This record gives sequence, C-alpha cells and structure tokens, in this order.
Amino acid sequence: MRSAGFQSIEIVPTALHPLVYAESLNAPGKPTILFYGHYDVQPAEPLHLWTTPAFEPTVRNGNIYARGTADDKGQVHIHLKALQALHQIGGEFPINIKILIEGEEEVGSVSLWNFVQKNKEKLKADALVVSDTSMLGKGVPSITYGLRGLNYYQIELTGPRRDLHSGVYGGAVPNPLAALAELFAKLHDKNFRVTVPGFYDNVKQLSKAERKALNALPWSRKTFQEAVGAPGYCGEKGFTTVEQLWIRPTLELNGLWGGYQGEGAKTVIPSRAYAKFSTRLVPGQDPQRIAKLVEKHVRKLLPKTVTCKFEVLSTGKPWSAPYHAPIFQRAQAALQKGFNQKAVFIREGGSIPFVTQMYDTFEVPCVLIGFGLPDENAHAPDEHLYLENYFSGIKAIAHFYQDLATL
Amino acid sequence: MRSAGFQSIEIVPTALHPLVYAESLNAPGKPTILFYGHYDVQPAEPLHLWTTPAFEPTVRNGNIYARGTADDKGQVHIHLKALQALHQIGGEFPINIKILIEGEEEVGSVSLWNFVQKNKEKLKADALVVSDTSMLGKGVPSITYGLRGLNYYQIELTGPRRDLHSGVYGGAVPNPLAALAELFAKLHDKNFRVTVPGFYDNVKQLSKAERKALNALPWSRKTFQEAVGAPGYCGEKGFTTVEQLWIRPTLELNGLWGGYQGEGAKTVIPSRAYAKFSTRLVPGQDPQRIAKLVEKHVRKLLPKTVTCKFEVLSTGKPWSAPYHAPIFQRAQAALQKGFNQKAVFIREGGSIPFVTQMYDTFEVPCVLIGFGLPDENAHAPDEHLYLENYFSGIKAIAHFYQDLATL
Repeated sequence: MRSAGFQSIEIVPTALHPLVYAESLNAPGKPTILFYGHYDVQPAEPLHLWTTPAFEPTVRNGNIYARGTADDKGQVHIHLKALQALHQIGGEFPINIKILIEGEEEVGSVSLWNFVQKNKEKLKADALVVSDTSMLGKGVPSITYGLRGLNYYQIELTGPRRDLHSGVYGGAVPNPLAALAELFAKLHDKNFRVTVPGFYDNVKQLSKAERKALNALPWSRKTFQEAVGAPGYCGEKGFTTVEQLWIRPTLELNGLWGGYQGEGAKTVIPSRAYAKFSTRLVPGQDPQRIAKLVEKHVRKLLPKTVTCKFEVLSTGKPWSAPYHAPIFQRAQAALQKGFNQKAVFIREGGSIPFVTQMYDTFEVPCVLIGFGLPDENAHAPDEHLYLENYFSGIKAIAHFYQDLATL
Repeated sequence: MRSAGFQSIEIVPTALHPLVYAESLNAPGKPTILFYGHYDVQPAEPLHLWTTPAFEPTVRNGNIYARGTADDKGQVHIHLKALQALHQIGGEFPINIKILIEGEEEVGSVSLWNFVQKNKEKLKADALVVSDTSMLGKGVPSITYGLRGLNYYQIELTGPRRDLHSGVYGGAVPNPLAALAELFAKLHDKNFRVTVPGFYDNVKQLSKAERKALNALPWSRKTFQEAVGAPGYCGEKGFTTVEQLWIRPTLELNGLWGGYQGEGAKTVIPSRAYAKFSTRLVPGQDPQRIAKLVEKHVRKLLPKTVTCKFEVLSTGKPWSAPYHAPIFQRAQAALQKGFNQKAVFIREGGSIPFVTQMYDTFEVPCVLIGFGLPDENAHAPDEHLYLENYFSGIKAIAHFYQDLATL
C-alpha cells in the first residue's frame, strides 16, 4: 500500500486477526470508493497434494501457484498495482479511495463487522468494489451481481460413552457413525432437494428474463465438467446447472469423521462421530431462520440412541444487486478495455458476507469484479491465478478507477 | 518363558512380525497342550484419552492399566506364571507343552498361518488352549465355546477429481461424503438387519436348548449398559441382547472420514470419502462368500456419480466347539478351584481366526478360557486387567495343567 502511494495506513488490532486499512482522500469533488479484500486463506491441507509448497508462490504454465493467489491475495494485488500505476502517472489517485483488507473472511468476518459498525462515517463511500469472485471462463471478463449466503454447522454425535470393541459389543449397541450416515442420507430427497421443512419457503423467484439471460451466458458445460472431473453429475431437479450453482440453495457435507482412520484394521465402535456441513442460501432466505430449521430437522431425524451437540459456526446472507446502475456500466466498459473482450453480468455460488453487510449498512452499489477462474482450485491444493488475467486485470482496474473520476 | 522353565525357545522371523515359539516335551505318556496367545495389540490412539501412558503399565483401583493387559499380553502372562509355579514345584512341567505367541492377531494372523501350515507335525497337540476372551462378568469364570468370524473391509469413494469450493460448485456436483452416508444408511433395514442379499442364508440355527442355556446365564443387562453408557440401545429384532452379541452376524462401521476435519470452517466438497467397516460372522457363514456378497451389494447401492475402490483387508471364519468333551469339564473344574466360583460355558462376539484355523487343521478340542472382563476397554483407551482375575487365573491354570496330566 505504501509503495502504491498511500500515506495513511493502519493495522487495526481485533479479537482475532487484525484489519489493514488505508485511505487517500485527496480528490475533492470526485467519488469515493471503498475497496475490500481479505488476506486470510482457507487451510492449505492436505499439504502433500501441492505440486510446489502452498506458501511459496511459483510460476508455472502461465499461472502463479500458492494458497491465496486466486482467493484473495492475488486479486487484492491487482488493485494495488493499478492504483500504484495511476499514482505514478498522475502524482495522485484520480478518485478518493479507501482500502479495507480483513483477515477473517473465511471464518465469518466477525471482527470486520464490529469495526464497520463502529466506523460507519470513516468507511462511507459512493460505492464498494470487491475482487473476490471468478470470471465465467477464460476470455470472459465478468461482473458478479449475485452471491449465495452461507451458514456453516458442526455436529457431534455420541453413542456409547467410550470406544467399544466391535466384536464384544457389535450388534446390540448404537454406532454413532451409522447414525451420522442415516442422518445425512435423509437430508436430501431423490430429486436432490433439501428435506428440511421450510427450507425453500421464502426463496425469491427470478423473472423469466433473468433466468433466460443467465442461461444464455457463454457458460461452458465442457469446461465445468473438465474442472470437476466426476464420473457423473447430480443436482436439484427442474433447474439448469447454472441455476443449481447460482440461484438455488444447497445443503452440503464438508467433512465427516469418526472411528479408526489409520492403516489396516481396528475393530472399534467409536463413541463419537462428527460432521461439518453448510447451507448455501439465496435471496429471500433468512440465515438465522434457516439455521433454526436445520437444527430442528436434524434433531428430529436423529434416533434416541445418540445425543447431538449442534453448533452454528457462522451465518451469512445472500445478496444480489441492480446491475443496470451507471457504475456497473462503467465497470463493464473498463473490463472491455483491459481484456479486449465484452464483459458479462453473472451470479456466483459462493459467499462474501461482507458484501451483504456493507450493502445493508451503507446502501451503496457493490461492484464485484472477479479475476479468478472457476478451475483455479480456490480452497483446494494447487490454487493458482492465471497471469494473463492478473495483468489484464491491472489494466482494467486502472481504467475503472480513472474513469470513475468522471462519474 | 526362560524363567518359567522353558529351554527350547525360538524367535521365528516372518514377512511381518516374528513368532515366538517354545516347547517342553519331557512328560512322556502325558497329554500335549498347544497354548496360543498374541503379543500384538490394537493401535493405542487416541492417546490423549489415556489416564496414564498406554505403554507404561500402571496399577490403579485393583487393575493394571496398559495397552495389551486384557488383549492379550496380560492373559498370556497368566499361563507363563502358572507354568513357572508348576515347574518350580515339580522340577518339570506335568504335561508336554508347546507355546506359540504371534504378533499379527489384530491384523489377520497371516504369518502365523503360513508357519502352522509348514509345521503341522511340530505343532501337533491333543488340545489347544487359548486365553484371549472375556469372563461373563466379575466372579463368573467362563469357558468360551463359540466365536464370531470377522471380515474387514475398506472403501474409497471418488466423486470430483479434486477438492472443490462448495460455493462455486455446490448444488451441481456429486459429494462423495453424501454418497458414503447414503450407502451406509442402506446397509441396515429398520429391524437392524443387514440388507446384503444372501447375508443370512446359511446361518446355522441354534437348538432351543442352547438358546435357552445362553439366555439363562448370569449375564447382567445392568453391567452391560453401565459399560456401554449409551443414551439408548438397538439391535436385530427377534433376538435377545446376548443372542445379538454372540450368535447373530453384524455389519458395523469402524471408521468414516473425508473432507475437512480441522478447527472452524472449510467450504470444501472433497474429492474422496473413506470408510472402514466389518462383518461379524456366525457358524454357517462362509467368509469368502460373504465378502463377495458385501462387495456386490455395495457396488449396486452406489450411484454412478462416484467410483469405488473396494478392499477386503481380512477374512476370518466363525467357530463353535462341542463343550461336553472331557477337557472342557476339566477346565470347568480347574476354574472352580482358582476362583471359588462355578465356571459357565459362554459364547463371545469377537473373533480369533487362529482358533478356527487350528480347529480345521488339527481337529483337536480348543479350550478358550478368558480372564478379561467385558468392560476392560480392550481396543480402547485405558485398557486394563482386573488383578484379582490375574491372580485367580494363575491358580486356575496351574490346576488345569496339573490336572490334565491325569486325562
């Protein structure tokens, strides 16, 4: 930030990970932009699946590989380099700019949110800009106008008080692993719909025109399936894949464990079994209400032979934006200049709680311009960022901020 | 063994863990007994649940705590101490005795079995004696005449080729954790019966008299439930708990894992999910046939959205003995002398593959005299052996071997 031209930079301590905040307000009469990003990353495990070490950035095949290159440190860097260029050319930034980088995006943004609540005046801006999303594909610069919300849960089931020998006790005692399996088998029906009563009650229906526009995007099933590489596909009946990914809520198992996981055999009936799972939410769904419905249904489904500790680790609202507003059109034009390609308006299946919170708090447009690609392994081993998008992104963002001076 | 009076002792190298063999054949005209035990133990993990370290034997509350005290090193020691006493009193052992201690009982006894096949003449005996089972309860010395067999399986399910971001991909791709849950939910019906077609086909029916005798044993539901400490109980419909544990086959999950298991949240759809599970088998069931039926059914139940690697880690036959034979009566009398309590004939739910193999090979009686208690945490943290049983066991076994000289 300092080398980009910022002079006012703070590291703000929090209960967990500090925030980094910088601002430059030397463009009187010009718009003020609040740029948001995050420096925290998903766990790098399993480490042995990385081709090169997760925290040693390595250039290979036109990509840069490291945890955080796509999500989100590499994308933050695009903005800093664009701003640095503008500062070097003009001796000052063409607009007023505030930069807020947090360290808890992957775990619910709690400290950030406290900071925002206490610094509403300081953070006030005409628009919020975020680069923490993906392009639709290579050569398709994209502006994201919709995100799913995220609730994350953890449960612990306890059957026997202690681990038991499966020979001595097997056949007459409850196995919490089996209870866990039975529970999750009941959380989807055969049409891949979530069985939690009330789960879909308030889901906002999209207009026919919007569904048509989304399905007409140059979204490639071939690229999608190559990126996933599964033997087969499944999803909620009655919706296209793009709709399943962007405008439909889900319930997804993120981790399961219990019993013996080492080499060979251990004939144990474990005392406890664990699961981490999450629900992706879409406009209309209230995260607090969904969390209550999920817990209620889980407790109802479980047999009386196990006890359940149910934790809601985080909740996050869904979001969508009126993408016809002028700033979105400026962003589209700037992307065209940076990439020499027409930019499209898309939605995304992931979640950025901050976007929703900022939108609710400041009621200003939020422009999400992503430079990641869907197959860049965000959250997985060998995460990377395509360098061509990195460089085109810097050009596009420089045009965008320059152009906003005339908004 | 040396201090017990044996002079001929060998350590027999194998492909995995060596065997220990000793013999004393200085009692011409007297019966020859082959005593079998094992020095290998179940993994001690999770280590943090041990009150004192797993491999530092500690006496507490009249018990000795350490991995292997009950299963099976402590029980082997009872025989060595009894033999040492007899040798010190008589200057020689009263019978011919062969001792075979293996190191692979918990992982299928492969090396042992190769050794037995190549050394049939050397190992020949009039009876086999094993102490690797449990007493029915405190104050109830027991002779086990039936064991369940054990097949152990591991499966690996693969959905997407790599771990995926559950926001970006959730809703339109297969989740192998969900497939695993659905699979295991389908392997039991509502009556807790295993759904594998043909699983129960050849199960040998017990006579009414034998079922009556088993159900009349001083088996205590209270002790059982105190040992297990589960919020509720379940088991195959139509059978008593004792029958569920001893004479009915089971399918049991021993371990499940996949996805994120660390602190907090990771929004991942994992590429792979794993399970370890086992079937306990009863007389009439053929382990090879059951393994084939289980694999076939698992593959049939799985959706086409995941691939499955299916491994049979080990197979083991069930066993039961004609407990009216004279040597069993001698054992019962010796136990009465050691414990001042009437000994009972019981079955057990666990598996000792060696017993079956020896029985099939040598066609001699196998006498299983257990000194463990059901709640001594065999295979779990804080495994222990009740010292009163240890000392009474030494007395009983000394009487037994002494008495066999007159058989």
